[in-house]
Amino acid sequence: MRNWTLDVRDLPDPVPASGQVLVRTLACGICGSDLHMLKHGAAMQALGEELSKQAPPEPISPVRMDPALDVVMGHEFCAEVVELGPDCSNVKVGDVVVSMPIAFDAAGLHTVGYSNLFPGGYGELMVLNDLAAIKVPTGISHRHAALTEPLAVGIHAVAKSKIEAGDAAVVLGCGPVGLAVIDELVRRGIEPVVAADFSPARRALAAKVGAHEVIDPKVERPMDAWRRVDGAKPLVIFEAVGVPGMIDQAMVMAPRNARILVVGVCMEDDRIRPMAGIGRELNIQFALGYDPLEFARALQALVEGTTRYPEIVTGTVGVEGVPQAFTDLGNPEAHAKILVEP
Amino acid sequence: MRNWTLDVRDLPDPVPASGQVLVRTLACGICGSDLHMLKHGAAMQALGEELSKQAPPEPISPVRMDPALDVVMGHEFCAEVVELGPDCSNVKVGDVVVSMPIAFDAAGLHTVGYSNLFPGGYGELMVLNDLAAIKVPTGISHRHAALTEPLAVGIHAVAKSKIEAGDAAVVLGCGPVGLAVIDELVRRGIEPVVAADFSPARRALAAKVGAHEVIDPKVERPMDAWRRVDGAKPLVIFEAVGVPGMIDQAMVMAPRNARILVVGVCMEDDRIRPMAGIGRELNIQFALGYDPLEFARALQALVEGTTRYPEIVTGTVGVEGVPQAFTDLGNPEAHAKILVEP
Repeated sequence: MRNWTLDVRDLPDPVPASGQVLVRTLACGICGSDLHMLKHGAAMQALGEELSKQAPPEPISPVRMDPALDVVMGHEFCAEVVELGPDCSNVKVGDVVVSMPIAFDAAGLHTVGYSNLFPGGYGELMVLNDLAAIKVPTGISHRHAALTEPLAVGIHAVAKSKIEAGDAAVVLGCGPVGLAVIDELVRRGIEPVVAADFSPARRALAAKVGAHEVIDPKVERPMDAWRRVDGAKPLVIFEAVGVPGMIDQAMVMAPRNARILVVGVCMEDDRIRPMAGIGRELNIQFALGYDPLEFARALQALVEGTTRYPEIVTGTVGVEGVPQAFTDLGNPEAHAKILVEP
Repeated sequence: MRNWTLDVRDLPDPVPASGQVLVRTLACGICGSDLHMLKHGAAMQALGEELSKQAPPEPISPVRMDPALDVVMGHEFCAEVVELGPDCSNVKVGDVVVSMPIAFDAAGLHTVGYSNLFPGGYGELMVLNDLAAIKVPTGISHRHAALTEPLAVGIHAVAKSKIEAGDAAVVLGCGPVGLAVIDELVRRGIEPVVAADFSPARRALAAKVGAHEVIDPKVERPMDAWRRVDGAKPLVIFEAVGVPGMIDQAMVMAPRNARILVVGVCMEDDRIRPMAGIGRELNIQFALGYDPLEFARALQALVEGTTRYPEIVTGTVGVEGVPQAFTDLGNPEAHAKILVEP
């Protein structure tokens, strides 16, 4: 990507510095954030600058990318170690690894896949930090291991919501993020989990990962479905769509004292009516990312087969197929998660 | 008020039914919500209808007022009992009382001051429920007792924020709601409490009720002031302004993991940028009203003199002075809280 436009080109191979390893991508999921970034990246950077003016930068805030320079996206990867830089002690050549998409150098923290220096998994080669890489046990396919990152997003969002046994959940949106949330809710024993999506294909995936009620909001409103099967338990609404208007919709439908967990990444301006929140004393919690333990737990669930999240993979492409895959992902009937295998 | 327009007129005296008492207003505070209601009441009712379509009405949702019929506003009152209806056992004629502004009849719950049937405290006579009235001990002026309701709003907002010893607070807006919040935070031992308002008079009141740092946002940004005196403790930002743009401002200034307690009542559409909340994983809690225990605690604080909230009273008027007082309250340099003494 350059100037928020996708292209496929040869770039120089990255070179691992001290404490870094060179890896070859085995599989890398295409994330909705990458699609959004092409459209809203410039606005995001402007907001980032406004936010950074409000406060001294946080000690671990990532180094920003320059969109005018090359950026290889892709942050949901499984890769094989092909070369060790100096001072590596964690992984060996030939190991299959996953890693949180972060890398360190003297300048600070970089986000792998949103960096000019650290290419992401849509390319053939990446540089990762030796100590951040987690060896993937044998017996799990690299395609499943590549789902560690998006599954960790769901695990984190559910943890952040503070949902507990005895609570109920409504999940708005059954894309890869909503499906990761559903998967984690079900694994935690939350019941009922009501999932809503306009797309029949996405609803089918929600049922496959274990949602107890799956509804088409054109046919039945999410809250009516929840009341039909429960209606009494404390409720958390997970907003996993991430387009303007969804937070307001969640606020308007929410019952008194409900919690709304926003895990959909809306990069645009949005409109809310505060009175809808005030009158029912709602709580809105925003969530992003995951911590290292949550990332490791996601891999563990995939290794142990306690998650049905691998159901979401609907296709694979080579590097040349990435631009077309970005287009295809716009049709929820056709695809949910496409893996790049460079 | 009729059709969202204020006027002063004679109305028939209300008659207490079973379990109700007739009271004479001694003092009634003018609330900013009443000012906003004249401007945004119609939009509020439209939103209320939209919200009620989303769900079966709650068992205790108030009976709506018809704005085309007379409404006597005023819900922050202290009054003297002048007549008992049948079946009263709690208060006696001559008692000075306060009450949460709610009344019951066969139709359900009514909000005193936002009802066609139950006139509020800007008029001379009100009907209250005997069992909801709390006798005001002797030794406290009716002007102080009339502050029970707005002080309870602050007590509730602080409780709802779940702020704890060891946390810090920034309060945006030092009107009667923000001042009640500051008063309660200080009484709970929260430190520092940083208060921000553009108005010198409001800042002087914030200092009087005990804010540790009081700043003019034109001179120093609230977050800079907080960092100057603290910057380390977990932070709750109280949004007590209630105009469009304030929630976004609070989100943009908030540090990572901060909580925003929205107690300002913004009745209009509002714009937020969700990414500001997502990137820092903010939490937004909306608050409204109080419960009976919080209301009783507010009266107790006023009776025991443990609150400096009475500092906020800046004037009194008769019934005829109410329309002018509504105008005067638009100038924060002139007034903070005006009491009506019919």
